[in-house]
Amino acid sequence: MVDYRGIFEDAVDALRQEKRYRVFADIERVAGRFPTAIYRDQSDNQREITIWCSNDYLGMGQHPKVIAAMQETAAKLGVGAGGTRNISGTNRPLVELERSLADLHRKESALVFTSGFVSNEAAIATIARLMPDCIIFSDQLNHASMIQGVRQSGMEKKIFRHNDVAHLRELLMAVERKRPKLIAFESVYSMDGDTAPIKAIADLAEEFGALTYVDEVHAVGMYGARGGGIAEREGLMERIDIIEGTLAKGFGVMGGYIAANRAIVDAVRSYAPEFIFTTALPPALCAAARASIEHLKVSDGERRSHQRQVQLTKQMLAEAGLPVMPSETHIVPLMVGDARLVKAASDLLLSKHNIYIQPINYPTVPRGTERLRITPTPLHTDEMVAALRQALVSVWAELELPRERPQTELSAGDLMLTPAGG
Amino acid sequence: MVDYRGIFEDAVDALRQEKRYRVFADIERVAGRFPTAIYRDQSDNQREITIWCSNDYLGMGQHPKVIAAMQETAAKLGVGAGGTRNISGTNRPLVELERSLADLHRKESALVFTSGFVSNEAAIATIARLMPDCIIFSDQLNHASMIQGVRQSGMEKKIFRHNDVAHLRELLMAVERKRPKLIAFESVYSMDGDTAPIKAIADLAEEFGALTYVDEVHAVGMYGARGGGIAEREGLMERIDIIEGTLAKGFGVMGGYIAANRAIVDAVRSYAPEFIFTTALPPALCAAARASIEHLKVSDGERRSHQRQVQLTKQMLAEAGLPVMPSETHIVPLMVGDARLVKAASDLLLSKHNIYIQPINYPTVPRGTERLRITPTPLHTDEMVAALRQALVSVWAELELPRERPQTELSAGDLMLTPAGG
Repeated sequence: MVDYRGIFEDAVDALRQEKRYRVFADIERVAGRFPTAIYRDQSDNQREITIWCSNDYLGMGQHPKVIAAMQETAAKLGVGAGGTRNISGTNRPLVELERSLADLHRKESALVFTSGFVSNEAAIATIARLMPDCIIFSDQLNHASMIQGVRQSGMEKKIFRHNDVAHLRELLMAVERKRPKLIAFESVYSMDGDTAPIKAIADLAEEFGALTYVDEVHAVGMYGARGGGIAEREGLMERIDIIEGTLAKGFGVMGGYIAANRAIVDAVRSYAPEFIFTTALPPALCAAARASIEHLKVSDGERRSHQRQVQLTKQMLAEAGLPVMPSETHIVPLMVGDARLVKAASDLLLSKHNIYIQPINYPTVPRGTERLRITPTPLHTDEMVAALRQALVSVWAELELPRERPQTELSAGDLMLTPAGG
Repeated sequence: MVDYRGIFEDAVDALRQEKRYRVFADIERVAGRFPTAIYRDQSDNQREITIWCSNDYLGMGQHPKVIAAMQETAAKLGVGAGGTRNISGTNRPLVELERSLADLHRKESALVFTSGFVSNEAAIATIARLMPDCIIFSDQLNHASMIQGVRQSGMEKKIFRHNDVAHLRELLMAVERKRPKLIAFESVYSMDGDTAPIKAIADLAEEFGALTYVDEVHAVGMYGARGGGIAEREGLMERIDIIEGTLAKGFGVMGGYIAANRAIVDAVRSYAPEFIFTTALPPALCAAARASIEHLKVSDGERRSHQRQVQLTKQMLAEAGLPVMPSETHIVPLMVGDARLVKAASDLLLSKHNIYIQPINYPTVPRGTERLRITPTPLHTDEMVAALRQALVSVWAELELPRERPQTELSAGDLMLTPAGG
């Protein structure tokens, strides 16, 4: 007989041996006090910590308007949607949320999913499948969910070197003009904090007649005059066919979405099994997300404070001689380069300094580029930044971690498919 | 140049021509008054309707304890989780929810996903991929999400005829003993309302050394002494290796989960990209779901009233000569057998009788078996059942719909892969 338990235990032991077995920290956020939270260790002892790795980038998850929208809608409409979108689940706040998202990106239509992962998987796979003989051009560092969408479609794919427009052009030139083409990329790459050359990609798409699909998950709410993302900031939203985003990061709630023209959205709505066969997002969540989006359309204060604290953090850590990776955005990665050491650094920060920064290891980043990924928010005070610097300097000394500024360019031949983001 | 807009418009037009283009009804539930809701038509006119097709089977989405749990947790912890499970998203209410689910099914461990669709896709694909040379035995009528998990795994599969244990035995006998095997099926099939021969399947699994995976999505909360599902009711939970369920139907909230031994859950937790790369469920949702689960563990009143109203509905509709399909559960399908007619019946119920029952068509059910699918809840009063009967009789007469009791057995050769459930 097969030893099933043994098979699964061995699979997990393999991760332990590679020092990349993940233990999830048990955290209780305190509304009104974020980024402060309560941490519970394995023995259920509690203490206060400061979170420095949250993807609630602007702290909108505790914004009073957003909390109130959830509470009021739960009181009025109840807690769940009660069905799939087709089977009684299309609730009023969800209809309003989709209108708010279409307006945010100046598109005809928008469609909400339960997560950013599902929106990428469902939208890419469905769009590609509906185009006969389609070929997908996918950035080498695209997120795991985009890779899954590409695979799921079953269509031919070409991987272009990360942000390499010349390589993308080469690949496009090699394909017949009449074939449908989809170029899929991210505006902000979440583990390095670099951004895509959106204009150059849109120019290529126009030249070669390709559809463009951009994942703005790490940008919506945070960039652009109304929080529409990098494409809005650069005046390029109308040159992108499909904008994908999340409600779970800058907007602080949960869920994912696409915004596009009516024909594309209606086709995904009508054909994607991940969408059709899933219970709709609860009204209270939709109302909370919409409150957050609408607030950030008109309020620029969060974005300004965010950028200020990000610059301060980068500067203070760099001045302290820490290996801050060059990043154009709000993501501040510190290279460690070793799975065991990055775990030790994270453990020490938590146990000795009450600072929580999750180690980032394979498969989220390539092996040998393990790192601490720091995400300052508008709610991290200058004092917290100073305490962070002090703690990191102490940990770097105690563990004798490398201080050289890392070389982040990948070699030309390094065309791996690395899923990122978890 | 490719006419992209035309491609997507044509894809959607094809659905219109087949009369299966779906228009989502825009519904606003009213907490405390479910199944009454407010319906908005295309011109934004509002009126009160009665929902007769909700998957909030017990009305737990408006239970005061469940609403209070969401409100209180939103006030205390805020609205979002702030990250993936690994990156600061593992919140205290989520940890407690997983304990509550493991206890519900008497398993060592449980793992929560954002939806039932994702839990099936991620768990089946990951479990199968981790077992070298695995072969999957899948019921012919399994849900679209299970089919997607099977495909995603890339492993060999055998489809057994719906609920046909003799056929499953044949297929098992033809495979070498030493190969890992996974038998995947549902306890309640949601479109016909029939149940699986769980004991016979568990016996076969034991005889041939296979793992068993059961989807209890349409049973949890509603069957068994504590709401553990059909397997609990029949005393078979410990003979099933992996129990998959949802928080969105009987429990009235949203999200999906698996419960299994620690090794299996840890392996899925560690390897499934759909899990790793997704923001964790918000604390307020987790607290609401847990309140619902814990309430239904000790309260049997909802289950008793539910079964009473289901029996009453079946009996009254059958007595009125309506074509009620034979169902062993709380799902009451009325066969129509034609895409155009089922849509016309649904439209007439809504426009003339203020009763909302979504038409169910392909791909949710096979073509030619289009139906109205009625789901009585404990909150549908006897008067509502009488009004439903009257409305249906009127619609059946007006549209001259068939009254014969349908033949539901599929022919032996009819081995299609029909995704169901949306």
